[in-house]
Amino acid sequence: MRTLLAFAAFTLAAPAIAQEADEPATPTSVVAAASAEEWLAIAPEDLLVMELAPDAAGNPRRVVIQLMPREFSWPWVANIRWLAREHWWDGTSVNRVQDNYVTQWGDVTEARRTPVDSPDAPYWSLTGHLTGPHSATLIERVLDLQLETDTYAAAAGFWSGWPIAGDNRGKQWPIHCYGYVGVGRGYAPDTGTGADLYTIIGQPQRHMDRNLAVVGRIIEGMEHMSSLPRGSGDLGFYTDEEAHLRTEIVSVRLASEVENAPRFEYLDTRSATFTRYVAVRANRNDDFYTMPAGGVDVCSVQVPVRRVGE
Amino acid sequence: MRTLLAFAAFTLAAPAIAQEADEPATPTSVVAAASAEEWLAIAPEDLLVMELAPDAAGNPRRVVIQLMPREFSWPWVANIRWLAREHWWDGTSVNRVQDNYVTQWGDVTEARRTPVDSPDAPYWSLTGHLTGPHSATLIERVLDLQLETDTYAAAAGFWSGWPIAGDNRGKQWPIHCYGYVGVGRGYAPDTGTGADLYTIIGQPQRHMDRNLAVVGRIIEGMEHMSSLPRGSGDLGFYTDEEAHLRTEIVSVRLASEVENAPRFEYLDTRSATFTRYVAVRANRNDDFYTMPAGGVDVCSVQVPVRRVGE
Repeated sequence: MRTLLAFAAFTLAAPAIAQEADEPATPTSVVAAASAEEWLAIAPEDLLVMELAPDAAGNPRRVVIQLMPREFSWPWVANIRWLAREHWWDGTSVNRVQDNYVTQWGDVTEARRTPVDSPDAPYWSLTGHLTGPHSATLIERVLDLQLETDTYAAAAGFWSGWPIAGDNRGKQWPIHCYGYVGVGRGYAPDTGTGADLYTIIGQPQRHMDRNLAVVGRIIEGMEHMSSLPRGSGDLGFYTDEEAHLRTEIVSVRLASEVENAPRFEYLDTRSATFTRYVAVRANRNDDFYTMPAGGVDVCSVQVPVRRVGE
Repeated sequence: MRTLLAFAAFTLAAPAIAQEADEPATPTSVVAAASAEEWLAIAPEDLLVMELAPDAAGNPRRVVIQLMPREFSWPWVANIRWLAREHWWDGTSVNRVQDNYVTQWGDVTEARRTPVDSPDAPYWSLTGHLTGPHSATLIERVLDLQLETDTYAAAAGFWSGWPIAGDNRGKQWPIHCYGYVGVGRGYAPDTGTGADLYTIIGQPQRHMDRNLAVVGRIIEGMEHMSSLPRGSGDLGFYTDEEAHLRTEIVSVRLASEVENAPRFEYLDTRSATFTRYVAVRANRNDDFYTMPAGGVDVCSVQVPVRRVGE
């Protein structure tokens, strides 16, 4: 069993804290106690609002996607912003739902002209690209908060509100977690424009990291993507006979172009509350959980995101 | 970046093998090449067949669950066999679907008498309980195949076809992966009989390991559990207004009591093919993936299961 290095001191102190408060700390109670300054606004131009056709009962289905900061996958994110401004996705559809893998959407006819090119760019960033107080070459000094172990990388943790992995040679890359959005492509690595997108609906298959571009994550309405009927064709694509199962995408817009768009904020990954939140996630010990794990997977730590004012 | 210790030699040899075959190895191609003796039959008395009410289009929905071997969670599995023989679940329902967490089923009225008691048993096994050629006290010598790293335990790997974690003091326990089935309970650890069951429908939250009893896994029909509409009540339970969303469970039977029940087999986790399968999963390097991860999460290695004769 392993412990999170960064939290050893905290973990030992936790029972005392819990005793004072008379209730054991849970991830929910820790986040609820965050101060207002620990929440950071998400810019409307970093949000995509995707309206799906209403469900069978007539209920609206809105999905909100937060785009990656420019340090990662920026050529694809730039394409995606362009396609949203062009209203390119309007009238396209969800075409593939493969259980325990991905839901994928775009132009099923493949006939629609794509007014952007496929970037020939790497799926990782070099340390020099990260902005802010980070200037070191080792990821230990780049991440806001590093977890002790990661099966897929020398290091993994959080930076600017995102789960990031890295090696010891100055490369960092974004991680595929549940609800994260990436760029579909053909066999050659430089064949994805951003017009064809997917989101993870099961156990993340992190061998996709550094092989596909992670461009964002769904922060509201994920259930509309994960609960769709699975396709029975190869790779979970809907067959011609299942064409009626394709969900229509009515529109995709940048939130900055949507009237009364909801506003969101995320918990600062440099904050004391976020550090405590991760520690409590790694050592659940409360009214229900009595055997702390002593560690937590980077994808099992969802970065808290909420609507502004809630 | 880490590599799988056990596969270092194999990994180096892989390009040559691939060159000979003229096509790069993929997990699918490796499993397809397994010999007949590497597939082991699953006994019909280790399978539960759950029939859900047909979907809105009238399609049947059958879910097949493989039960854990007796070395783990056996008091709960014994209860489950008993409840199936009693036809206890007939007419119960799926009552909770929480996105990225669990789908849960049982008697929503809580009025049905449960003819079994809640076992007061541990959520792990001691080494002495494992059968077969395993007699050492360290998990390294107990598992059929051990992965190099695990965030949640000193060791993790596979034993008798199941993902198992362990510490260095002789304890092993089953792991919560996508599609795995566990026993719902109240706050006290000894309050779950096995009448209320859940399955994981998102990123596995492995802090549930050793806090809840893992009793099996869904080997067919998982899509019927994962694509259900999410509940809007607390913890994803359907509210009273959503009562119509509850999916009826028509029957649950041991396969040994079902006429023409399908038969299944799994890939022996002691086999050379399984070892190669895990190595290829950890180092995807083929027509699509060009940047091998160098590691793989225990839950990202689905133990291959297939119908007999396929």
